Amino acid sequence: MTDLLQDLLAGIAADKLKVIDLTHTLGPSFPQLSLPPEMGQALPYRSEEISRYDGRGPAWYWNNFTLCEHTGTHFDAPIHWVSGRELPNNSVDTIPPEHMIAPACVIDCTEDAERDADFLLTRERLEEWEAEHGRIPAGAWVLMHTGWARRVNDPVAFQNFDEIGQHTPGPDVDCVRFLVDKRDVLGFGTETIGTDSGQAQRLNPPYPCHYYMHGAGKYGLQCLNNLDRLPPTGAVLFTAPLKLEEGSGSPLRVLALTPAPA
Amino acid sequence: MTDLLQDLLAGIAADKLKVIDLTHTLGPSFPQLSLPPEMGQALPYRSEEISRYDGRGPAWYWNNFTLCEHTGTHFDAPIHWVSGRELPNNSVDTIPPEHMIAPACVIDCTEDAERDADFLLTRERLEEWEAEHGRIPAGAWVLMHTGWARRVNDPVAFQNFDEIGQHTPGPDVDCVRFLVDKRDVLGFGTETIGTDSGQAQRLNPPYPCHYYMHGAGKYGLQCLNNLDRLPPTGAVLFTAPLKLEEGSGSPLRVLALTPAPA
Repeated sequence: MTDLLQDLLAGIAADKLKVIDLTHTLGPSFPQLSLPPEMGQALPYRSEEISRYDGRGPAWYWNNFTLCEHTGTHFDAPIHWVSGRELPNNSVDTIPPEHMIAPACVIDCTEDAERDADFLLTRERLEEWEAEHGRIPAGAWVLMHTGWARRVNDPVAFQNFDEIGQHTPGPDVDCVRFLVDKRDVLGFGTETIGTDSGQAQRLNPPYPCHYYMHGAGKYGLQCLNNLDRLPPTGAVLFTAPLKLEEGSGSPLRVLALTPAPA
Repeated sequence: MTDLLQDLLAGIAADKLKVIDLTHTLGPSFPQLSLPPEMGQALPYRSEEISRYDGRGPAWYWNNFTLCEHTGTHFDAPIHWVSGRELPNNSVDTIPPEHMIAPACVIDCTEDAERDADFLLTRERLEEWEAEHGRIPAGAWVLMHTGWARRVNDPVAFQNFDEIGQHTPGPDVDCVRFLVDKRDVLGFGTETIGTDSGQAQRLNPPYPCHYYMHGAGKYGLQCLNNLDRLPPTGAVLFTAPLKLEEGSGSPLRVLALTPAPA
């Protein structure tokens, strides 16, 4: 096992293994989830300079900052949803560290999402994917690659609201139940602000990805970047949220290790 | 390389590789660095509930929170110090992802720190360590294991102030220069709030670990936990800070992979 870790480091040093950053840069303009005004609101990222090599701190530069547990590229723990509230180890400070290193299956939905912002991923599409790439293993992340990350510098296009609400892709009810009940995945990841689609409050149950995934102790990843750089299978994800006391989620740096293209 | 990643996952699943969490839980009582009152101050962690399965959000629980880039178990980037201000890729959003996976050398200074809170790690001690465990490799983290993490639930003992200032262990000037100039390490990590000792403002230069490490593009890790669970060599650290725009540092979840004890 010592050799395996040495080989891992040597593989990275020799560029045979690529470390890919699946995280967006978090600045004050990063789009934040927006709820109806009667609901409690998530704060966007705000940073305040403490000192910058000046009278407030002659040799050092640093900032205080404010944000939500669900700001930027972030992780959802089961306690985030009412269906996961009673589960053991359901917050970011209590989930097992072993879950923070896991394989990823990447489902390419870029053409579908380009054609239809309300595109819903189905169980049938997952079965087609499996016919080509093999069975989704237990304990894997399933990542829905929609190309949405390309919109990140245009907050209006990223949010994609109209008079009836938000239009962003996500999984349908049957897809989520298949991943939870039949595949026992680790969690579901998206490029959009939610793991559920923009119109998921109209599904039954509402927000099925939150409801079923977190109710089964599974996780979520949102606002992922660079999914176009991952192979359909073979990547390993590092998803280590901040250890916030009873945290419902956390912004995090998501890294992937992949074999370099031959 | 695909096989190597599969072996990595299989090793974790079979408990032949341990995933060790080197992070303290971050709550409102976590000790925060305290500077003279004329200086800009780092905020401690504060969390505010947005909703908890109630009228503010019927199905969900989440929090907004405030903190400093240098709160809790955290990472220092070169831009944090004036000596690193002009370097390329010197902030947490621009450092290479490849640097976020690296080997660790753990120097046991627990008896020294127990005897003397102002204990300074020397080059000689590093050379003794190397005689036993081999040369510190380029690109490695050097972690100073002092047992300080045991004090974390007693903020007064963790800070350890008296009338002349703070008393916590750290490296001396020659030790830092040796690690930077002769060993080309990735960075230096401690269990205390700073990578420098509590009295390091009296050294020449003041705060030598910040000054030389960051001036050479090296990193810092502070408030580490569970260093007693790492072997002297053979562990691999995952240190992925948040991708904060021009961030000088970041709280983070530090994970280590180690071979399980035989």
